[in-house]
Amino acid sequence: MTSSIDPVQNLAQLIACPSITPAEGGALSALQAMLAPLGFSVERPVFSEAGTPDVENLYARRSGNGPHLMFAGHTDVVPVGDEGAWTVPPFSAEIRNGEMYGRGAVDMKGGIACFVAAVARHLEKNGALKGSVSFVITGDEEGPSINGTGKLLEWAKARGEKWDAAIVGEPTNPDKLGDMIKIGRRGSLSGTVVVHGVQGHAAYPHLADNPVRGLVTLVDSLLYPVFDEGTKDFQPTNLEVTTIDVGNPAVNVIPATATATFNVRFNDTWTGETLMAEIHNRLDQASRRHKLRPGKSEPVNYDLNWRNRVSHVFLTHEEKLIGTLSSSIEKVTGNRPQLSTSGGTSDARFIKDYCPVVEFGLVGKTMHMVDERVALADLETLTQVYERFISDFFSQKT
Amino acid sequence: MTSSIDPVQNLAQLIACPSITPAEGGALSALQAMLAPLGFSVERPVFSEAGTPDVENLYARRSGNGPHLMFAGHTDVVPVGDEGAWTVPPFSAEIRNGEMYGRGAVDMKGGIACFVAAVARHLEKNGALKGSVSFVITGDEEGPSINGTGKLLEWAKARGEKWDAAIVGEPTNPDKLGDMIKIGRRGSLSGTVVVHGVQGHAAYPHLADNPVRGLVTLVDSLLYPVFDEGTKDFQPTNLEVTTIDVGNPAVNVIPATATATFNVRFNDTWTGETLMAEIHNRLDQASRRHKLRPGKSEPVNYDLNWRNRVSHVFLTHEEKLIGTLSSSIEKVTGNRPQLSTSGGTSDARFIKDYCPVVEFGLVGKTMHMVDERVALADLETLTQVYERFISDFFSQKT
Repeated sequence: MTSSIDPVQNLAQLIACPSITPAEGGALSALQAMLAPLGFSVERPVFSEAGTPDVENLYARRSGNGPHLMFAGHTDVVPVGDEGAWTVPPFSAEIRNGEMYGRGAVDMKGGIACFVAAVARHLEKNGALKGSVSFVITGDEEGPSINGTGKLLEWAKARGEKWDAAIVGEPTNPDKLGDMIKIGRRGSLSGTVVVHGVQGHAAYPHLADNPVRGLVTLVDSLLYPVFDEGTKDFQPTNLEVTTIDVGNPAVNVIPATATATFNVRFNDTWTGETLMAEIHNRLDQASRRHKLRPGKSEPVNYDLNWRNRVSHVFLTHEEKLIGTLSSSIEKVTGNRPQLSTSGGTSDARFIKDYCPVVEFGLVGKTMHMVDERVALADLETLTQVYERFISDFFSQKT
Repeated sequence: MTSSIDPVQNLAQLIACPSITPAEGGALSALQAMLAPLGFSVERPVFSEAGTPDVENLYARRSGNGPHLMFAGHTDVVPVGDEGAWTVPPFSAEIRNGEMYGRGAVDMKGGIACFVAAVARHLEKNGALKGSVSFVITGDEEGPSINGTGKLLEWAKARGEKWDAAIVGEPTNPDKLGDMIKIGRRGSLSGTVVVHGVQGHAAYPHLADNPVRGLVTLVDSLLYPVFDEGTKDFQPTNLEVTTIDVGNPAVNVIPATATATFNVRFNDTWTGETLMAEIHNRLDQASRRHKLRPGKSEPVNYDLNWRNRVSHVFLTHEEKLIGTLSSSIEKVTGNRPQLSTSGGTSDARFIKDYCPVVEFGLVGKTMHMVDERVALADLETLTQVYERFISDFFSQKT
């Protein structure tokens, strides 16, 4: 047996790889070196698309006689930020006061380190798995997510892979291990509105058409009324105007264009398509009721451009999967986890099209921050939760 | 007698001086060289204030037994813009097809050149003036207007100077000479509103406070309802939001601050003070009725900063002055000029505190543009109008 039964050692090896998105940084190779001795066949497909960086991914499977469980995650990490502000170098994996420091410690090399350790322990005790386990690990989760999990799943499916359930190892706990499982995530949609006016002198407004006037009307139509009041499973859909920019330094000049960008986090009231249609409709109606200065009645001249791709909603209805994970958590930690759909997007939005998916990992408090770190005790506890879950999942399903 | 009876020659000398605001560029010296031989005593006070450039100004008076007429204007010019786009070099004063080209040709070295020629012709015919004429000429009209006409008038008043009427030589005609006299100008007031929020992640809006939401509400309160419907003498007061800026490049981040700048052109419904109070009141009321997301009810946290100084309204009620100028124009051009209060600010806003003031000059079409230019025929006609006005003004008053 290998040393990969120790999540602390696994994590130290992963943190040492500077895999700032989209760089592989040695992290997938380190993971491959842990999985191969455990009997996994490992593949490292690279995906590319015009305008985006090529990204390395990893698919590893250990086959057994029974259902197929996917563990999904990413080895890429966000940039270190102000490196001088870190207590220890961000890729040193130093341990201080029972905590391991490092970029990716909780988001989410730690989750991977624990799942590897859990599989290793299970194999050490049982000699085999009562089914198949696969690792679906990308290097493109913190980036545009174009050459990552989505393409990796298509690639695997094309090779005949099928899964019965998936667990994503993202840090789902707000405060302490066992707080929260994510059983869904809101979708995300972003767009930019550009209003075209006519430049001119502020003293001669009748010779100009100030685009700011139109933009304020359009933005107001996006903000009010609210899109919905929330659903049984989700918070209300929320739109934030993240920036408005004109860039006109001259106070006596009416500018030619004005731009606003917005981001919507939407619940299962909407699909990407119905939400886009709603936004188009709000803008079109507002552009026609535009309260211009007296004498003007043309609609606002605007363009709407969608940014990136829509991130779709996911919501798992598979009570048995949720129940198995919850009880594994409760047995190990003593906490009954909250079932939540809050927070940002995750790669579970791609997985939902293939099998039921839930998310459980470490405590997210320090993610993306300087001095990202994880308690060694949490690594041990999460490993035990994952081991228990693997055991229960295969017992229950067979 | 000098050659300053020819406005074309006078203007060529003035255009040759590159007096881009606030540089004197030789222009005031050239003017002094024209006025001294005509019997004017010329002074060149320099004014300064912390944070602004020192500026040269000119005060010239030829005293006579009768009322005191002021001619006011400026020799500073706006920058040339894209010099390569000019048909001739912008300080060459070249004549093409009956037009003299050059920065300042109409705004407003041309007006000065004509008034000098008009005085010279009057003196040539009559030997003397039936009163006093003074030139109040600044080098700070196109700039911040802090070390210019305002201080020059205070300086002259402190020396015992008093005036009975003033004419400003700004280009007042939209299309052809004789179109329009300005008998008033709206005031101008600018301010910047900064809304302070709390930065955060777009997926966790309850942990953040998006300042764009508040800013849109505040801007709306400035735009609607309109400030007034106009007055007997003036267009409606008009507010333009000239820029809104947030500068947040990350679509998943809620920004910390959002800024809007506005400019108001206001009529005699308001003084600078009452208008500032109205704007403060609108913002304060809007900040409290701010339609935030459900559960939030704090007022919008904002600052309002006034930019530059308020430019006050002026409106001349002196029917006799207006009548004398109008009839001079009609006698020479055959056009009865429209009495207007439209357009931007002028230094008449400073003069109004000392004596009645009207404005009449060249055709403004090419002002501030590449290939600024004036028809030689217009220079001759304006000189005749000014000469007639000087003659009529002194005849009527004595």
